[in-house]
Amino acid sequence: MNKAYEIVLAGIERAFLDGSLTLGDRLPGERSLAERFDVSRSSVREAIRILDAVGLIRSNVGSGPGAGSVIVSEPAVGLSRALKLHVSARHIAAADVLTTRVVLESEAVATAAEAVAAESVQRHGRGSSVQSPGPGDVHLRGAGDLLTAMRDPDIAKEDFHNLDARFHRELCAAAGNPVTDIILASLSSSILDYVSAAAAATDDWPWVQAELTKQHAGLLESILAGDADRARQECAAHIHWFATTTGIRP
Amino acid sequence: MNKAYEIVLAGIERAFLDGSLTLGDRLPGERSLAERFDVSRSSVREAIRILDAVGLIRSNVGSGPGAGSVIVSEPAVGLSRALKLHVSARHIAAADVLTTRVVLESEAVATAAEAVAAESVQRHGRGSSVQSPGPGDVHLRGAGDLLTAMRDPDIAKEDFHNLDARFHRELCAAAGNPVTDIILASLSSSILDYVSAAAAATDDWPWVQAELTKQHAGLLESILAGDADRARQECAAHIHWFATTTGIRP
Repeated sequence: MNKAYEIVLAGIERAFLDGSLTLGDRLPGERSLAERFDVSRSSVREAIRILDAVGLIRSNVGSGPGAGSVIVSEPAVGLSRALKLHVSARHIAAADVLTTRVVLESEAVATAAEAVAAESVQRHGRGSSVQSPGPGDVHLRGAGDLLTAMRDPDIAKEDFHNLDARFHRELCAAAGNPVTDIILASLSSSILDYVSAAAAATDDWPWVQAELTKQHAGLLESILAGDADRARQECAAHIHWFATTTGIRP
Repeated sequence: MNKAYEIVLAGIERAFLDGSLTLGDRLPGERSLAERFDVSRSSVREAIRILDAVGLIRSNVGSGPGAGSVIVSEPAVGLSRALKLHVSARHIAAADVLTTRVVLESEAVATAAEAVAAESVQRHGRGSSVQSPGPGDVHLRGAGDLLTAMRDPDIAKEDFHNLDARFHRELCAAAGNPVTDIILASLSSSILDYVSAAAAATDDWPWVQAELTKQHAGLLESILAGDADRARQECAAHIHWFATTTGIRP
């Protein structure tokens, strides 16, 4: 605790913990925070920048009633920025990022498949024909729509990559663990430039696109069938295949 | 890219990528960065704060030859700060952090066990009696020393927690993936206060300590025996046991 802005950050953390500050609240003004923590206004400004950088506040410009910083929770923003900077500093190899991704994502899709299987048993048990969607359903339906969009043969490579990333996020979200989601989002955005460059250098993109689409469809099908083992294996094979094909991993 | 400090961060990232800035270098001065990126000095200061917060620079005070900011790579610092703030903002439940930890750490210890098994085959094949230590060996020997220190019946609870965390880090480091290490370090430091509080509230600490020590010893033994499946299972069981015993997870 040797820097003034650390005092402000620790104080804000305490305010979160004791409930005096919660999501959606407006952050107190610079002067008020400086007085409360007995630090300079420039130290408060530094702390606010860090909160902004880690995705904990969103600043609104102006001086009206909507001005100031609102507490939000966009953790993937903060984590991916930190990871991205470290990847660029070469401390972290893209291949190691991918290996970590395989571990987390394979387990997430397996959990999603188990959730589908459990839900199906429950519905069957209830003997009801009313099928209210669970949180997993919503994400898996979103993934289905993204799959359809990715099948468009005229889609731009750039658009395909974005839909591809969203497709993977929807599958993982169906597992219902926000920490895993955040880390996976950070991992993939930390090597996005790298992946795009590798894909751009691919000789036969139409073939790669067709293969990816086939693999995506198989993966979604495994989850919808409630087959955790198949989903786990197909996910790992899919990520490895892309990495090898585009030369990210030897 | 709507904020001036983002311009500075993106420029520094490019400098990492093209090799003009590397680890150990001194970051150019405030004025020089402000001129290069055509932004105000206060925007440069904000960017430097963020680099500091994500563990990419270490600032030295003073005006001598050692003054200024040196490029370092301490990614766990940055990620755990971001995660910790988000955990405190209640967006993230400690139980979800633990679930993610189980997935990553179980796989890491299994990989460490596989590395031990592969190394043992290689040594045997070489028929050599010279055993030069690999990177995994170093970490596993460190873990062994920590285990011995944790057996001290008079150890303070606080010290035990610190050694415990270091023990887990050494086991994972033996797997050789820095991304997984960084994420695991971030996860555990993001809920450290939570875990300490839960452990402090435990009725029978000597019993908990004895159990933990037994489980730690078994886990290290599995890895040293090269038994990946046993290591994976013991790791998951160990983390679950502690979470349940201390009431972090119901």
